Amino acid sequence: MAMTGVLRPGHVQLRVLDLNESVDFYSNVLGLIETGRDAMGRVYFKTWEERDHHSVILRQADNAGVDFFAFKVDSDATLAKLEKDLNAYGVATKRIEAGDLLETRERVRFTLPTGHDIELYAHKTAIGNEMGELNPEAWCANAEKGIAPIRLDHALLYGPDIEKAQAIFTDVLGFFLVEHIALDDSQDLAIWLSCSTKAHDIAFVRHPEPGKLHHVSFLLETWEQVLRAADIMSMNRVSIDIGPTRHGVTRGTTIYAFDPNGNRFETFCGGNYAYPDQKPTKWTMDEVGAAVFYHDRKLNDRFLTVVT
Amino acid sequence: MAMTGVLRPGHVQLRVLDLNESVDFYSNVLGLIETGRDAMGRVYFKTWEERDHHSVILRQADNAGVDFFAFKVDSDATLAKLEKDLNAYGVATKRIEAGDLLETRERVRFTLPTGHDIELYAHKTAIGNEMGELNPEAWCANAEKGIAPIRLDHALLYGPDIEKAQAIFTDVLGFFLVEHIALDDSQDLAIWLSCSTKAHDIAFVRHPEPGKLHHVSFLLETWEQVLRAADIMSMNRVSIDIGPTRHGVTRGTTIYAFDPNGNRFETFCGGNYAYPDQKPTKWTMDEVGAAVFYHDRKLNDRFLTVVT
Amino acid sequence: MAMTGVLRPGHVQLRVLDLNESVDFYSNVLGLIETGRDAMGRVYFKTWEERDHHSVILRQADNAGVDFFAFKVDSDATLAKLEKDLNAYGVATKRIEAGDLLETRERVRFTLPTGHDIELYAHKTAIGNEMGELNPEAWCANAEKGIAPIRLDHALLYGPDIEKAQAIFTDVLGFFLVEHIALDDSQDLAIWLSCSTKAHDIAFVRHPEPGKLHHVSFLLETWEQVLRAADIMSMNRVSIDIGPTRHGVTRGTTIYAFDPNGNRFETFCGGNYAYPDQKPTKWTMDEVGAAVFYHDRKLNDRFLTVVT
Amino acid sequence: MAMTGVLRPGHVQLRVLDLNESVDFYSNVLGLIETGRDAMGRVYFKTWEERDHHSVILRQADNAGVDFFAFKVDSDATLAKLEKDLNAYGVATKRIEAGDLLETRERVRFTLPTGHDIELYAHKTAIGNEMGELNPEAWCANAEKGIAPIRLDHALLYGPDIEKAQAIFTDVLGFFLVEHIALDDSQDLAIWLSCSTKAHDIAFVRHPEPGKLHHVSFLLETWEQVLRAADIMSMNRVSIDIGPTRHGVTRGTTIYAFDPNGNRFETFCGGNYAYPDQKPTKWTMDEVGAAVFYHDRKLNDRFLTVVT
Repeated sequence: MAMTGVLRPGHVQLRVLDLNESVDFYSNVLGLIETGRDAMGRVYFKTWEERDHHSVILRQADNAGVDFFAFKVDSDATLAKLEKDLNAYGVATKRIEAGDLLETRERVRFTLPTGHDIELYAHKTAIGNEMGELNPEAWCANAEKGIAPIRLDHALLYGPDIEKAQAIFTDVLGFFLVEHIALDDSQDLAIWLSCSTKAHDIAFVRHPEPGKLHHVSFLLETWEQVLRAADIMSMNRVSIDIGPTRHGVTRGTTIYAFDPNGNRFETFCGGNYAYPDQKPTKWTMDEVGAAVFYHDRKLNDRFLTVVT
Repeated sequence: MAMTGVLRPGHVQLRVLDLNESVDFYSNVLGLIETGRDAMGRVYFKTWEERDHHSVILRQADNAGVDFFAFKVDSDATLAKLEKDLNAYGVATKRIEAGDLLETRERVRFTLPTGHDIELYAHKTAIGNEMGELNPEAWCANAEKGIAPIRLDHALLYGPDIEKAQAIFTDVLGFFLVEHIALDDSQDLAIWLSCSTKAHDIAFVRHPEPGKLHHVSFLLETWEQVLRAADIMSMNRVSIDIGPTRHGVTRGTTIYAFDPNGNRFETFCGGNYAYPDQKPTKWTMDEVGAAVFYHDRKLNDRFLTVVT
Repeated sequence: MAMTGVLRPGHVQLRVLDLNESVDFYSNVLGLIETGRDAMGRVYFKTWEERDHHSVILRQADNAGVDFFAFKVDSDATLAKLEKDLNAYGVATKRIEAGDLLETRERVRFTLPTGHDIELYAHKTAIGNEMGELNPEAWCANAEKGIAPIRLDHALLYGPDIEKAQAIFTDVLGFFLVEHIALDDSQDLAIWLSCSTKAHDIAFVRHPEPGKLHHVSFLLETWEQVLRAADIMSMNRVSIDIGPTRHGVTRGTTIYAFDPNGNRFETFCGGNYAYPDQKPTKWTMDEVGAAVFYHDRKLNDRFLTVVT
Repeated sequence: MAMTGVLRPGHVQLRVLDLNESVDFYSNVLGLIETGRDAMGRVYFKTWEERDHHSVILRQADNAGVDFFAFKVDSDATLAKLEKDLNAYGVATKRIEAGDLLETRERVRFTLPTGHDIELYAHKTAIGNEMGELNPEAWCANAEKGIAPIRLDHALLYGPDIEKAQAIFTDVLGFFLVEHIALDDSQDLAIWLSCSTKAHDIAFVRHPEPGKLHHVSFLLETWEQVLRAADIMSMNRVSIDIGPTRHGVTRGTTIYAFDPNGNRFETFCGGNYAYPDQKPTKWTMDEVGAAVFYHDRKLNDRFLTVVT
């Protein structure tokens, strides 16, 4: 009880068009730390603050987008139980063998009705953050290398049947709905789900095409770090979608920008905390602009259309 | 699973020497919102962001200190289960009837080996935060009334036998150890425990006298809000113990100050997030100064001696 | 010597279409303090930090825009000398009698080749800021009423012949060029001029129509205050042009927004300091986007076209 | 007129006990950029933002302290005029030949009644800040090397006869009094003087021993940079005197700390702006604590006694 079961987003595998250019971007502009490369040529990264071996994996491919998004669970027992529960709920799962990803044991993969592959796993080698676990300093030099986010925070995925994805997350995996934008009385345009006290661990927007990525989000500690991130984007001629600004949903501050492959990423800060006993916050379509971009109170064209 | 069981600190009852002066302080300087008074004369408060009816209760008494510190759990079933588990663990519990605290149903109370009364409860009336749950604004006027913290965050309690308290929290209530200061190889000076992804939901320091309060902590959103809090303290001639500064433990920023009764409180910001799969951070006595006050790297005299 | 002669922007008179609505906006959204109304019905404001009687004057009119922008000089002797110097330079001046503006002695007015009326004056009643001059607190309640800027900072004016305006400011009034955007080798698109150590006290953009206002700027102390300003704009449904973002020119952070009459205003923060011995910073047209909006590195349509 | 005459603090020469250790400290902890060494073994530094060749000079000596503090003036004509004015005022001056300091032309030196050597000079080679003067980026990598202040901001000097020093600065050099702490009706404990719109370009505290240095101050851009500075001090085991905190005087935020030689330095942020037409702010001895350390509202022992 308390914080158990599904713990947090653990990794995302992104498809990139030019691996070298992307490695440079994720290393030197976003400021992740490369932790390994595997036989398939995939490149592994973590933030300076994360303790497990990796949270972002880049794979060279012919089209951009997301291969899979994974959550760490607290134990092998939980992994087995959730696998069984998913199957009982009618969700087919597949075991990926240990070692398929570096320093990661067996993963359980399933496909959401939205067309996205989600994974659960219980073990990834803890290599420690850069300050260590004995009398640590408050931060370290790599906290200022590039944008240098704290952690992989969440992803926003676009696809159909988001209510079915929501049901799997809430009925089986223990997530709860934190906020939603209601299209009308019967269905939502967008949902934000949490398995923790974060404002969201994963989110979905209804979209006709399955399996699309709107953005992967990385956490920054302060609004001043958001400004610094925007500055670094400008210095590196990164294409900014919008920001710095604030979301109405979660109240977090944000920049949306694009990696060299057109995958949108977010540098996110703040946001409400959430607990499962609280009533979800509802946004209606007349305020959808404020829900997404609080200051402008209107969507830009790209929010609902540009995905990878 | 995920976030279940014990959710968060739900309320603290503090003893104050002059109720009127204290109500003024908690309302206008700390910036809490009064939500009720009961037949015993107790005064109830919540922050502008909290949704449940209250998180701080003031009781007029002859000596300052803490009466009890309570955690909200996710359901009646959890409450019953934890009550049974506590008893099975050898911890006596007592049911406090619904309505003893305003808008709060039955509570289960037990006394820690450290001498502190801890409570669990499953229901308190949700009166909502001030922005509401439908198309909310980012914040509201009361977010700038006095110091105006986000939430009751945690408490640091002083007493003997802290390892026995730790065992109850980790073995029965699902908490995990996040950081600790080791006195030597066999025992700790201080422990920080979480039931969530917060850096701490409760903490203890070893101390000969039981049942003492070091501080109750309130969360601020930014380091600039910490400065604002210090300014407001100065304008109101609040006695500041230390700060603005940073803790080594949790990496959070902080001010310790005293309410008019000598009860220490903290305005706290930031801090690491924590998960139960991460190795606890260990501090040794040669770095105890940095652990507590990161910038000065030495304790002030009051840290280990001034409690209520 | 040192800081003498022309000291700073002292007041701006703006035309508004609906005085009551505008007074509400400047009082409660922008957060200025009303200090008086005159027989003509004009309404006077100052910021919580300014010491002189007023810095903004609103006048009801049929079209929006700026009537005049004024600089305070250090003495009657300076006023007389500058009047004489302007005349000698071929600039006609007119004395406006004391009392025409509340609490303000004689002003010397002249019209720039850009079509703007500029004023100089030496005396306006000092009514003090709200903290006083004896053992002041760091700030006061009005520092949190609305956006609550520190001061009237500068104006950006649009008109023809900006090089002639520049010559008057630099040759006669003691200003120096801090930054400029070069249209080509022979002329500038925009110039930023300072009479102090500020990054700019007045600025001009070349524009075919004379006497136009791009924006009046108000200073905020921090980037977090810029966020707060954007939030307050959103809460009050203020039309934001762009921001929060950063300028390349001056490196300041900014929001451009519109008052209810369509007059653009800026909430500005930071920015470089400047001294007359430093070489002006030059921007070329291939980087004009970054010069104005550093993060997006491109102008929005409104920057060069929407003026009042 | 406007900003002319004495422009700003231009350099300070500090005595250090161990040059190598001090060079390491000023380079890697404070984050200045070494720009040269001269035949006397002196080492020259500037900040990443300053444009002139140097602002800090370190000289190996047997005791710590300040050799001289210098102001840049706007021209040779001003230098000659001020030299003559000083002499006429009864202050003896001495010309130091061009080249005595690297890249610096002739300086005019005089000794204050407080025992401090002050210099004026009109020319030092402008080597530019690190972003350049053509389409500059907002900042550069060296803005994050060590504490990385923006500029040498001011110095606080201790000595007798501060009213005589004040007279020289105000009557001859064009400075004005911004704030003062009154010991009684007839004399001040401390005075803050400006030649610009800064809250202070130089300050004095009455002290029996002449020629002492309380601190040299370096400007930071934000309160978050003040926190970062304190963190870097902690990481490098720098002895912090006090802070992060706020001054009542100037309202600036601050840390006082000691270089390896015991010379106190300040990392300062914010603070009021000042103009010569504003009435000086007066502090009385009953509020001297708040004047110096606004949050604690009391002096620490070191403020009045520890100088070099």
